[in-house]
Amino acid sequence: MGKLVEEFNTYRAKMNTKILASENKVMKRIYSLDTLTYQDGALSAKNKEMLGLATSMVLRCDDCIKYHLEKCYEYGVTTAELFELFGVTNMVGGTIVIPHTRRAVEYWEELTSREI
Amino acid sequence: MGKLVEEFNTYRAKMNTKILASENKVMKRIYSLDTLTYQDGALSAKNKEMLGLATSMVLRCDDCIKYHLEKCYEYGVTTAELFELFGVTNMVGGTIVIPHTRRAVEYWEELTSREI
Amino acid sequence: MGKLVEEFNTYRAKMNTKILASENKVMKRIYSLDTLTYQDGALSAKNKEMLGLATSMVLRCDDCIKYHLEKCYEYGVTTAELFELFGVTNMVGGTIVIPHTRRAVEYWEELTSREI
Amino acid sequence: MGKLVEEFNTYRAKMNTKILASENKVMKRIYSLDTLTYQDGALSAKNKEMLGLATSMVLRCDDCIKYHLEKCYEYGVTTAELFELFGVTNMVGGTIVIPHTRRAVEYWEELTSREI
Amino acid sequence: MGKLVEEFNTYRAKMNTKILASENKVMKRIYSLDTLTYQDGALSAKNKEMLGLATSMVLRCDDCIKYHLEKCYEYGVTTAELFELFGVTNMVGGTIVIPHTRRAVEYWEELTSREI
Amino acid sequence: MGKLVEEFNTYRAKMNTKILASENKVMKRIYSLDTLTYQDGALSAKNKEMLGLATSMVLRCDDCIKYHLEKCYEYGVTTAELFELFGVTNMVGGTIVIPHTRRAVEYWEELTSREI
Repeated sequence: MGKLVEEFNTYRAKMNTKILASENKVMKRIYSLDTLTYQDGALSAKNKEMLGLATSMVLRCDDCIKYHLEKCYEYGVTTAELFELFGVTNMVGGTIVIPHTRRAVEYWEELTSREI
Repeated sequence: MGKLVEEFNTYRAKMNTKILASENKVMKRIYSLDTLTYQDGALSAKNKEMLGLATSMVLRCDDCIKYHLEKCYEYGVTTAELFELFGVTNMVGGTIVIPHTRRAVEYWEELTSREI
Repeated sequence: MGKLVEEFNTYRAKMNTKILASENKVMKRIYSLDTLTYQDGALSAKNKEMLGLATSMVLRCDDCIKYHLEKCYEYGVTTAELFELFGVTNMVGGTIVIPHTRRAVEYWEELTSREI
Repeated sequence: MGKLVEEFNTYRAKMNTKILASENKVMKRIYSLDTLTYQDGALSAKNKEMLGLATSMVLRCDDCIKYHLEKCYEYGVTTAELFELFGVTNMVGGTIVIPHTRRAVEYWEELTSREI
Repeated sequence: MGKLVEEFNTYRAKMNTKILASENKVMKRIYSLDTLTYQDGALSAKNKEMLGLATSMVLRCDDCIKYHLEKCYEYGVTTAELFELFGVTNMVGGTIVIPHTRRAVEYWEELTSREI
Repeated sequence: MGKLVEEFNTYRAKMNTKILASENKVMKRIYSLDTLTYQDGALSAKNKEMLGLATSMVLRCDDCIKYHLEKCYEYGVTTAELFELFGVTNMVGGTIVIPHTRRAVEYWEELTSREI
């Protein structure tokens, strides 16, 4: 894993711990519901992570994109599949999605440890 | 097909014809690129339509939702799969997606000609 | 209660019943978590409904606005308080919030059974 | 003027009167600042209305689109210019802008009293 | 005050000075109207800052969040109140608000000079 | 050219090359269509770049803003024109556009090599 991936995960883990430590019931349930949401069901976990990634892209949330890219990588999404997902999200969401696609490609390169 | 489906498709077809008749090159290419985007490739057309639907839901575009619901129905997406997609989009996009989910369910009932 | 209020509540109740009947676990938990979110706590339910209304306004979701307007009315929010909330949301969210403010005023008139 | 134009303007005028009658200082100043924003200056009023229309399209506010379409029409924007603006906004904002473009074309036909 | 708070305020002050120095009438009035918006009235300044924070969170503007966090801190919003506001904004706006919540918690720790 | 401009262009060029090298047909056509969109036509390229900038501002995409600021600078947009465009976008999009306006002013200073 490269530097971008490590930095993102370290910060994410540290702050999530604080949010959960706050004992706010709504925030805690959002976190546990979020885990439930992406589990295998009528749709596979892989397909759900692709939905999570695509929706994060059109809503243009770089941290959400990083998180779902990792999950997609774990579930074996290929680079060709990823770029087709980029095609859909850049069409639906427009060219304002391009800068997020650039950063997604950079993060994907780190995850896969190879240049595209 | 029920009334909602018919009204949507009639208006959509009528106005698309006008937009394409305008001979604006950019608009025409957007339309043809849109068709290309959802064709079978590394991802199946069915999976791409689900990505189109999910992104339309979090961006809260009712007409886009209707369009992709029809395509999902044509490609055999089941009601159980659809509701899992609703789960993802309502989690990612929040409770502001609920009103669009209500209208999506109503449209889906018309498409499938049966009550949920 | 006037026509707008009745129509909104009838449709909302009918479709919510269908969504909950689907037995999709994620959707069901979102609904129950939504109820929990607005209960009295460190912040009063009234203040939380005002937060719900303000966030719905800047995200420009008319149905969400209607729902929270009703709750604000039940909790005794005054017309003067409401307009100050409109001031904040129209400043933060810009003039694209104005059309939603117009519809909010119309709905508020029905709720309070008097013209503004 | 056709039916869509008349309905929009009647409702808009009626509700704006109520909002201004509320004597909320922030809302009143937003309205007067809004008028100031689109006056001739370093940029012409025509160019500013096109900026107002383009931003309303990517933010997908149909009422704002209608308002600025009328102003663009008054300032002599041509149908060819309008469609090039549609090209930019559909590229920047993506295919979720298409349904709003369809309704914009319908409104423009009423304003210009001729079919496209 | 810690490093995040200082950096944000220094940059913000420097650039605001430039914007106001430009003598653009609309921009100047937006700034002065913004100040007016959050003053005590039918709603307290504290409540208005919470509305400002909540709307900034669902619109996902980190700088706006920082600004309103400072104001909320000045007006005595407690950590428990803040987390209930986070609950509302993460429910309304969805899990895409989580990364902004993480950064908000980090900023709040600096403002209050203690770890959560 | 200053540091911000150079960094933005270097990263942008590097990642665009990778995206185009992926041979994904949809992404490639989006890029070429994007170029076509801003060419002289019924509207001048200068006017189209201002539309591109204004829409990027209300959608709050800093990288898109930087790109269109450069193009606006190349086409001779003046600082006075730019600030009037800022007026429109901050009114339409609200005060959440202010932080992006601050960064836009900083970038414009680098492009024009003079302080505002």
